[in-house]
Amino acid sequence: MGRVFAEPFLLINYKSYLEATGRRALELSLKIEGVARETGVKVGIAPQFCDIERITSNVSLPVFSQHVDPVAPGAYTGHVLAECVKEAGATGTIINHSERMLRLHDIERALEEARQVDLTTVACAGTARLAAAITLSEPDMVAIEPPELIGSGRAVSRERPEIVSDSVRKIRSVNSNVKILCGAGISNGEDVYAALKLGAEGVLVASGVVKAPKPEEVMMDLCQAIRRYSMNAI
Amino acid sequence: MGRVFAEPFLLINYKSYLEATGRRALELSLKIEGVARETGVKVGIAPQFCDIERITSNVSLPVFSQHVDPVAPGAYTGHVLAECVKEAGATGTIINHSERMLRLHDIERALEEARQVDLTTVACAGTARLAAAITLSEPDMVAIEPPELIGSGRAVSRERPEIVSDSVRKIRSVNSNVKILCGAGISNGEDVYAALKLGAEGVLVASGVVKAPKPEEVMMDLCQAIRRYSMNAI
Amino acid sequence: MGRVFAEPFLLINYKSYLEATGRRALELSLKIEGVARETGVKVGIAPQFCDIERITSNVSLPVFSQHVDPVAPGAYTGHVLAECVKEAGATGTIINHSERMLRLHDIERALEEARQVDLTTVACAGTARLAAAITLSEPDMVAIEPPELIGSGRAVSRERPEIVSDSVRKIRSVNSNVKILCGAGISNGEDVYAALKLGAEGVLVASGVVKAPKPEEVMMDLCQAIRRYSMNAI
Amino acid sequence: MGRVFAEPFLLINYKSYLEATGRRALELSLKIEGVARETGVKVGIAPQFCDIERITSNVSLPVFSQHVDPVAPGAYTGHVLAECVKEAGATGTIINHSERMLRLHDIERALEEARQVDLTTVACAGTARLAAAITLSEPDMVAIEPPELIGSGRAVSRERPEIVSDSVRKIRSVNSNVKILCGAGISNGEDVYAALKLGAEGVLVASGVVKAPKPEEVMMDLCQAIRRYSMNAI
Repeated sequence: MGRVFAEPFLLINYKSYLEATGRRALELSLKIEGVARETGVKVGIAPQFCDIERITSNVSLPVFSQHVDPVAPGAYTGHVLAECVKEAGATGTIINHSERMLRLHDIERALEEARQVDLTTVACAGTARLAAAITLSEPDMVAIEPPELIGSGRAVSRERPEIVSDSVRKIRSVNSNVKILCGAGISNGEDVYAALKLGAEGVLVASGVVKAPKPEEVMMDLCQAIRRYSMNAI
Repeated sequence: MGRVFAEPFLLINYKSYLEATGRRALELSLKIEGVARETGVKVGIAPQFCDIERITSNVSLPVFSQHVDPVAPGAYTGHVLAECVKEAGATGTIINHSERMLRLHDIERALEEARQVDLTTVACAGTARLAAAITLSEPDMVAIEPPELIGSGRAVSRERPEIVSDSVRKIRSVNSNVKILCGAGISNGEDVYAALKLGAEGVLVASGVVKAPKPEEVMMDLCQAIRRYSMNAI
Repeated sequence: MGRVFAEPFLLINYKSYLEATGRRALELSLKIEGVARETGVKVGIAPQFCDIERITSNVSLPVFSQHVDPVAPGAYTGHVLAECVKEAGATGTIINHSERMLRLHDIERALEEARQVDLTTVACAGTARLAAAITLSEPDMVAIEPPELIGSGRAVSRERPEIVSDSVRKIRSVNSNVKILCGAGISNGEDVYAALKLGAEGVLVASGVVKAPKPEEVMMDLCQAIRRYSMNAI
Repeated sequence: MGRVFAEPFLLINYKSYLEATGRRALELSLKIEGVARETGVKVGIAPQFCDIERITSNVSLPVFSQHVDPVAPGAYTGHVLAECVKEAGATGTIINHSERMLRLHDIERALEEARQVDLTTVACAGTARLAAAITLSEPDMVAIEPPELIGSGRAVSRERPEIVSDSVRKIRSVNSNVKILCGAGISNGEDVYAALKLGAEGVLVASGVVKAPKPEEVMMDLCQAIRRYSMNAI
């Protein structure tokens, strides 16, 4: 899949944090873009639905929706249509985040709707086994995020490294191409470095960046860890 | 409440119709704005979340979100925060549409979130009794839409006039100020006129306008009916 | 409505507590029945679905289901049909408990299904305003239970007496007949007495009885408070 | 797993059909038991929750719940606890039927709760891919039932044989032991025979038996097809 690249990927999830809403979402995005440009690291951002258009008009980072609904165009008031997300300029979408879980059947349908408009998909799961299960529906990326560590400040890659390595093994046993991300509790460069060493090919970060007093400094720390890892990996 | 005005109100719900998504949502909005300006009728539009910003930047009609989630700012991936809707320029929001129903408890919480950022609220219900029930939570407007007539092309105000008049009576018995709308199947001026005669103070229209070959013509028909009614009412 | 009686009512909700599951649900029910008989207090019990039949076959107390689904007989795998609850011997059902909340529309439908098979309905709500709203759908009893006090050991009737009295006032403003219960945190006779003094006509108790080392002693305390109140009220 | 046997398995899902509720559920069960005994075919039945106890007390067939909730014992009003289902005498449970779908995360948790009380699990999915995905969570049996054929009278094994064979292949690629069932539209012996020939090891039937004028005759037809298949297979 052309859309999925070789380098490590850093996806910043804005959730519904006030620090990343509206005007502040745009300011945060510009800071993140600055660091991404300076370090050359591949970074994506996932703002709220109503902020997507404002950000894609002003920032050149790849933008992900936080969710799309498993519906085709039609009489669906209050739903998030993949087509609409796409037209607002997003290039991808998260699906089945632990704060917006879907029924198994709907995960498959949401992935299909996203694919039809060529959105890159990041499907989330909370355990290694479910990460493998969700991979069978062929998202572009799969993210393992143990719910109990989300927002905890304790990084999955250092607190529970076996979850990451077990996920990588289970996912690879059913699919050799999907890009594997991990997340939950990641807030500094060492957390990121540890994740990549365990076989993850990218990380999801939320409060670690969004709620930091100086998000650009945290971003710099995360991105330098990715560069350090990439150089050692050669 | 200053936000709720005396004249009849026409709210166009774009749902997730492709004809009202992205660039086409903006084009439709400009057409609707033209007719509203020409006739002087009070018209609101309810586009999809990701289209709100684009439309509020280019159109001066009041814009409503199709839904907001019953959550305060925080770790809520994939949710629709009232604050974010507001910053995108919306002035109001629909809540509990029959295609996006909420639990009773969450209706109250969603209304509260909307009120805190000063969004005008339109709470929907499918029966006269539920319309009265939802009115107790003090939305700015309440809309009665029998689900079985939504999208049917058979207007509630002409097929089932007793539902409208019964709703008006039940709602007024618990609240004397809330603005009462009705909807479902409304697609021409006569449907609108009939609704207003039954005591509704506005109407919700969706496919009748959005999927019409010439939306501006349907809009003109609807708005002229409102003007005709208003003149007779003096 | 003949089914709703004048005396104060005590409804024991077994939830999914292990102490009130299967064989232990029957033992608990027999103890509760003993105290009810001895004191002459009107007591109902709400065991889990699969325990209803076993209990109604062995105990003469009125048995309530903890929930029924808003569906008529048909292709609904895994649903709780009012008809089935009724055939198992239950005489009533709780609807919209805060641990099993329904969408507003479904509350009305579930009440209707229950009524069609002549089940006595106890509709729950978490705030005074929602209690009044739900009363418009005409349940036989309405129960106000602030979610934040449920299972807290702090009785709503003593911690937040204004919620009870405000609920009574709001409910009576829309309906003069519905029986008004309150619950959350109630665990002794004084809590019950306080509730009745505030205008409640019955109480819901769960962990206070179910998880007590000696449920029969707590039951005796609760029932004596009801008798004391009834005598003073004459 | 000792609980899963070699012979083809026939599971009759009573859904919420009135013909299979209460007293009538017991009568139907006795008829099914008669045919199972006479033909020696392995048959299970899945009645409604409130009917489980009555049936397990009077019928010796293995009884399955139609659903269990993903919760451990505790403050869960209106939920279906695996422990309670077990104490009522059930030996297994269906999970994630297309009429009672769960979120991916909850499927895993419900399976775990069922396993802890030693209930045999039948996890359902609507597509071959999802059937393989759900198999990764290690149910005892997996059932593929395309929702569009459920209740249609058009048997999946004859209308869409490729779905069955594709499911068998996809499921076997991730698990060699799970027992594979199929269902949707199956109503006679030829449908069953076709399913077994395609690699299914059992079938789910609902309306085909429950709503038949003479359920015992349909059962006889289904069971004889299984015997015929088993004999040819030797």
